[in-house]
Formats: sequence, C-alpha cells, structure tokens
Amino acid sequence: MNKDIPYKIYLEETEVPKQWYNVRADMVNKPAPLINPGTLKPMTAEELSGVFCDELIAQELNTTDAYIPIPDEIQKFYKMYRPSPLVRAYCLEEKLGTPAKIYYKFEGNNTSGSHKLNSAIAQAYYAKKQGLKGVTTETGAGQWGTALSMACAYFGLDCLVYMVKVSYEQKPFRREVMRTYGATVTPSPSNTTEIGRKILERHPGTTGSLGCAISEAVEAELTRDGYKYVLGSVLNQVLLHQTIIGLETKTALEKYDIVPDIIIGCAGGGSNLGGLVSPFVGEKIKGNADYRIIAVEPASCPSFTRGKYAYDFCDTGKVCPLAKMYTLGSNFIPSPNHAGGLRYHGMSPVLSQLYHDGLIEATSVGQKEVFDAAVQFARVEGILPAPESSHAIRVAIDEALRCKETGEEKTIVFGLTGTGYFDMVAYGKYNDGEMEDYIPTDEELEKSFAELPQVNL
Amino acid sequence: MNKDIPYKIYLEETEVPKQWYNVRADMVNKPAPLINPGTLKPMTAEELSGVFCDELIAQELNTTDAYIPIPDEIQKFYKMYRPSPLVRAYCLEEKLGTPAKIYYKFEGNNTSGSHKLNSAIAQAYYAKKQGLKGVTTETGAGQWGTALSMACAYFGLDCLVYMVKVSYEQKPFRREVMRTYGATVTPSPSNTTEIGRKILERHPGTTGSLGCAISEAVEAELTRDGYKYVLGSVLNQVLLHQTIIGLETKTALEKYDIVPDIIIGCAGGGSNLGGLVSPFVGEKIKGNADYRIIAVEPASCPSFTRGKYAYDFCDTGKVCPLAKMYTLGSNFIPSPNHAGGLRYHGMSPVLSQLYHDGLIEATSVGQKEVFDAAVQFARVEGILPAPESSHAIRVAIDEALRCKETGEEKTIVFGLTGTGYFDMVAYGKYNDGEMEDYIPTDEELEKSFAELPQVNL
Repeated sequence: MNKDIPYKIYLEETEVPKQWYNVRADMVNKPAPLINPGTLKPMTAEELSGVFCDELIAQELNTTDAYIPIPDEIQKFYKMYRPSPLVRAYCLEEKLGTPAKIYYKFEGNNTSGSHKLNSAIAQAYYAKKQGLKGVTTETGAGQWGTALSMACAYFGLDCLVYMVKVSYEQKPFRREVMRTYGATVTPSPSNTTEIGRKILERHPGTTGSLGCAISEAVEAELTRDGYKYVLGSVLNQVLLHQTIIGLETKTALEKYDIVPDIIIGCAGGGSNLGGLVSPFVGEKIKGNADYRIIAVEPASCPSFTRGKYAYDFCDTGKVCPLAKMYTLGSNFIPSPNHAGGLRYHGMSPVLSQLYHDGLIEATSVGQKEVFDAAVQFARVEGILPAPESSHAIRVAIDEALRCKETGEEKTIVFGLTGTGYFDMVAYGKYNDGEMEDYIPTDEELEKSFAELPQVNL
Repeated sequence: MNKDIPYKIYLEETEVPKQWYNVRADMVNKPAPLINPGTLKPMTAEELSGVFCDELIAQELNTTDAYIPIPDEIQKFYKMYRPSPLVRAYCLEEKLGTPAKIYYKFEGNNTSGSHKLNSAIAQAYYAKKQGLKGVTTETGAGQWGTALSMACAYFGLDCLVYMVKVSYEQKPFRREVMRTYGATVTPSPSNTTEIGRKILERHPGTTGSLGCAISEAVEAELTRDGYKYVLGSVLNQVLLHQTIIGLETKTALEKYDIVPDIIIGCAGGGSNLGGLVSPFVGEKIKGNADYRIIAVEPASCPSFTRGKYAYDFCDTGKVCPLAKMYTLGSNFIPSPNHAGGLRYHGMSPVLSQLYHDGLIEATSVGQKEVFDAAVQFARVEGILPAPESSHAIRVAIDEALRCKETGEEKTIVFGLTGTGYFDMVAYGKYNDGEMEDYIPTDEELEKSFAELPQVNL
C-alpha cells in the first residue's frame, strides 16, 4: 500500500539529486553524432570550440558516463527554486471523474516561468568558469531567454538574446523581464546580422522561428571576442542538465511507492521531455520497468509525427552542424502558433533515436483543444499553464478520460513545464473565440523535405 | 544552536495551521467598531447583511475568539498552493555583505501572484455556502481580482470586478487572467454605476483609486439579487484569513529555533501586513517576545506616517460604513504610483489601533528606491518581485545594511507578498530611467483632512 501521499511532494534537500543522468551511456543504439557539413565527419571537440564552451562540449560528446556530478555552485543556485513539487492533481481528477491518478511535475515556480533555468544556470556557470565576457542565444517563447538572463545576472555575464519575432510581439513584457535582468533583446530575424538580412529578403514579413534566431545568435557570437553561443534545447548537454527534472520526479515517486503507467511531456526541441523521461527510459532500456512515454507536439509543427529521420541543419541559416533527427526541414517555418517554445523544425537527436527505437511514442494536438485543456486545468488546479505545457495537459486529460471509459486506475505523470503569465495575448484570443490553427499540408512538407541536405554516410 | 536550516523551509502538511488567529481577542485596546454614518452607532450584523455574507459578518464582529477553525473545504484548496516557503535570502545577504540573517515568506507561487488567494477562497466559500449566485469586488493592482476570479471559478460563482483604471491600463494582461477564470472586469471609475458617473464628473480624467472602485462594487452588489460584496483588504475578516501567512511563518521559525528581531511588511489596506504580523503581535501583547514590526508604505500614499487617526469612510463614494483608522481622507486620490495595491487612503482598523498603541511602527519610501531594491533582489534571489512587495524589500535591505555598519547579526523577516510578472510596464519605466514619484504636499493633505466626516462619539 502507498504511504500517505501529500498533495505536493517536495523532496528534502538531502534527497535532491547531486548528479545529472546521461541516458546516452545506457542507450544500445547511440544517437548519431553531429557532423561537419563540409567534411561530413563527426564534429570534433576542437571544431565545436569555436561556438561552445569547453566543458559543455565535453558533455555534448560524452556517451559513456551515465552520471555527471552537478558542480556545487550550480547546486547552490538550484536550491533557490528547486526541488520543484510533484503535485497530485486531485481536483482535476475529481472534475474529470476519472479513476486515473494524475501527477504533474511543476517547473513554473521561478521567474523564468519554466524548466529552462535548469540548463541556463549550468551553461552560464561553465561560461563564467572559462573566463568569458558573455553569451549569445536565441529564444522562442522567451522562457529560455529569461532564464539565461537570470543566470547571467547571477554570474555577472553579458547576455545577448535573439527573440523569435512572433513571441517578441506577442509577449512584450518578456523583453522587459530580460532587460530587468540586464540582457539585450533583439527581435529575429533582424537586420543586425548577415543571416538575418538574408532571411528577411527570402521571407519578407516572416514572424521568425527558432531556426532563424539560432543562426543569428551564432553569427553574433562568431563576430564577437569573449563570447560563446548557448542553446536552450535540442543539444545533448541541455537534455543532460534537464534530467534534474526526471531524477527528482523518479525519487519522489519511489519515495511513495508510486509506479507510473504513462509519462507525458510536450516536445519542441526536446529539453523538457528529454529531461523528464530520460531516467525512466534508462529503466526501460535496462528492462527494469515498462511505461508508455508520450511526446506531445503541436499539429502546426509535427516533427516527430510527420517529419523525416534524417541529417539536417539545426538552424535556418545553415551555419550550425548537421544533426540526425526527426525534422520538418530547416527551411520549414511553422505558423505563428502561440506555443512559441514548440516552434522548432527538428527534435533532439537523443529523443529522435529513442523514438526511432520505439522507446517513446508521439502524438500531435491542435491549438484550440490545447487551450481548452489549459483553461480546464487552470480553473481546478489554480495554475495558469504555459501554452507549451498545455500540450501535455491535453493528452494527460485525454488519457484520464480513456481510463474513465475503461475503469482503469492508471497512474499518469506529466511535465508541467511552466506558467502562462506572459501568454495572455494567446489566452485573450482564446477567450474571444479567435484561436486559429494552421496545419501544414503534405505538399508543404514534401517541398520542405526536398531541400534536406543530401548526406550519405 | 540552530538546527541545519534549509534554503527554503516548507512545513509538512501535518504542521500546517488548521485555525486562523484573531488578534483582536488578545488586544487590550480593541479596534474601534465600524459605525453607521446615519445613526453614528456601531454597525450591527443585520445592517451589514445587506452587503456581506453572514459568516463573514460574524468573523468581522468577533473580538473574543482567538482562534477560528479553517473549514475543511478551504484547507483543501490551501493545499494546492500552501504551505508557502519561508526562504533564507543567502544570496542577498552575501551580495550585501551583511551579518544580518534575512528571511522572506514568499506568497507569490500561485497564479494570483500574491497572498490575496488566502482570503479570496475563504470569502468565495462562505458566499457559496450561503447559496449566492455571485460576488462583486474592486481590485487595485489586480492581484485581489485575479485571486477572487480563481476562487469563484473553483466554486462556480459569478465574479464582477471593478479594477482601478490606472492598473487596468498598466496591466492589460491581468484582465485576461481574470477573464480566463470567467470574471467580468470593468475599469473604475466607470459609467456603469451612479457613483462612478459622479466621480468622473468631479474628477474628469482620474486614474481611479481603490476607494472609488469599492464604491462602484458595493453599488453593483446592492442593485443585483443573489450577490454580495467582498473586499480584499482593510476588513477584520480579511486580516483574519491572512493570518495563515503569519502562523506558517511563526511555526517555521520555531521549528528551527529562529527568533526574529525585525518583521517587515508592505502596507496598503493592511491585509498582508496584518496577516504576517498578527501572531507575532499576539506574543508581544502577552509579553512573550519583543520584535520591531515595521509597516512600509509608499511616500505617495502615506496613511500611517502622515495620516490622521479618525473615523472616515472606507470608500470615495461614502456608501460604506465609517471606520476608525489612519487615513488621508476618503477624497484623497493618490498619484498613479506603480504599486497599485498600496494606493488606498486608509488603513486596517486593527493595524491602526496597533500602530496607535505603539505595537508596530511605520515608515514610507519612494518609488525609485523601491525599484532599486526590487531589481537588486531579483538579480540575486531569482524572483522578480511585485512593486508592492518591494517596499518591504527596500526596508529589509536598509536594515541589513545598518547591521553591516554596526556588525549586529540581526534576524530580519519580511513578507514577499507576490511577483511582478504583470508589472512590466512599471519595470520598463524603471529600466528606461523614467520612474517618477509624487509626494503629496502638506497643503493637499490638509485640504483632504478638512473633508473628514465630523464624528463625535
């Protein structure tokens, strides 16, 4: 029998993980390496050092060490807002009338409003340790940019942020938060970089995408001394830092003898999903457990469910290395869906391999049904969720309703990655009945796939 | 010696208070009663029942029971976001280089963004229990309105909110949050009420005040069947509900043998301050302890530090009863300071009596120095504070810097009532160096005092 389970499970400081978990060490089929588009050979640490910090490159390339210690300084910062609570959604269950047990790991109780701070502080720490002046980055919904601004303010680093234009316009106050933390924020595509000017020429009036913003941030780094580029998702290093989410979740569940049946996370570049599910995937690989693990993506940007598993550029400007991943093509610019953090053409190579191997599954959902779920959740659980996170809520509710039909008492765990306080333009559209969805046609995708780089390894 | 104190002290569910604390029961000099402006006699329960719910009236008038049980349904809701953490501000202390130990009780980890939810859920519960259709209210910064919207959504009550116009304009997204929770929001003063029309005539172009909005909300209640009026501050019942803050704080401090020297809270109508300090004032009254308790108010609306202790109307429209309190006069309309939640002409009668009796002290601070403190705090503690809360941060920092000069290792506890995510217009002004302050002249105050009602009891 379960012990008496509180509404919110907070780990004690002594129970908090002191290491990140590197799922690649346990994967039978390792994710394909990043390759140099010129030589078509795997990127070496030396080649990567033009863009990234040394210790982060070591983490990026490490496929052998299952556990990597979290430096003390980062653990100290984590204490400011971690451990995050694992919450039993009693009120949502009651509202749905489901026999399912629903838990969510809530990462929104910090000013970045999301899980992004977990990796931002790590990346800022390594940049500072290497003696850098500052970092450049891109941001979609603005959560990563806010998180990085906070981390840079803490370590006294300069922070240059390229923000996807649609989010810059939909979330004007995000910019002020970043400025308050001392960052410089530029809407992307912009005229401040060569690649930005090219993209604007090719797609006049574009509302931008993560792919564009990455290209600009990388160019900004390459043209400045003492700066490196940092990224909030997709990369192995980012998933590694985010495993603090999954490790805390797993420890909390085990503390109360709770065994999940289904684990659900939203998926854009994959940082939240990878962080949440990696420790559980590890158990699955070792044959210790079996869970359904579901990635939820927007129907407007369906890289898992409608993409190709192929080598592609990580950015629109094709200045980054090639990664093997589920992709819609680096030229694909998704519609201005309100979940800015999920508007990325590709998917983490680690998650792509896990999906390819059948260790995780994926589904896509429309924007309106996502906001239906968001509002339903907000009214009973008292947290106004981010549109990105609400993708996971949608599927968690659907699974719980399925349990209601079958009478099964499944245990569902989902990642509630953040809050929607800066997404009120989107909620306003929903409240006014003006929420639209744009789903790419097969023809559009085929056109985008035709431009994938031809890589025969 | 102290036990090993975590960064954040979270009480166990079993340690969470099950009763509110009614400091009036222990006060030697009771706060003066509300009086009927017509008869000049204390308001009876019957007279109050035109405006308020029955059980809330009982709490309003109860000066004898020191503890009042928290109904199970409210305890259940509290579990969604309580207990709130008591945080040791290690990073702020380090940054300041002070020997002082700084703790803050953080009430911002819920979607209302503040402590207001503690009373909103209680008032909605009693309204529902009485079989009402809905409630009307006013909101300043929008935190109370958001909290009430959330509480009403939870219990299925209709919610009509009059929002002070300056906040309505400075915080457009607050309105969307309230709408998302199903509330109807009207900027005040408005043309939807008789009193609103009168105020607009007398003060064309006014940006409103809590006093105006209260009058409108009361009128809206009186002209609708099945509705009662609820209020987010000032009243005894509200302070009572908010004592959950102080009780949790006291329990957490005692758990780790921490004895505070100074307790600091911002003060507008007094709900946060009263909630935080009541249990400590109780100990002071009983002679069990001695702390400095400091109320911090904006220099633009200094009811404690420059007001008169007199009977006055709670609202600008003079439709409410008279309360004896420190007041700037019910006709005083404060400048559009960004701390909308502190723009009230009066102060809780309980706190007014305690201040009059020397049990608490008060100070006022300017807006620019408040934002200086807010940004300094945000950068090291990782939480972007509300402008209201930042008044307490300002004085906490000042006291800690005083300790740095004297070498004293004082323990400072302050209330961090909420987050500033909806205050980015204000932060933007600060970031742009455009923050202004308006301090009323003596002449202006004298003019306002001259209009105080002449009450000889």
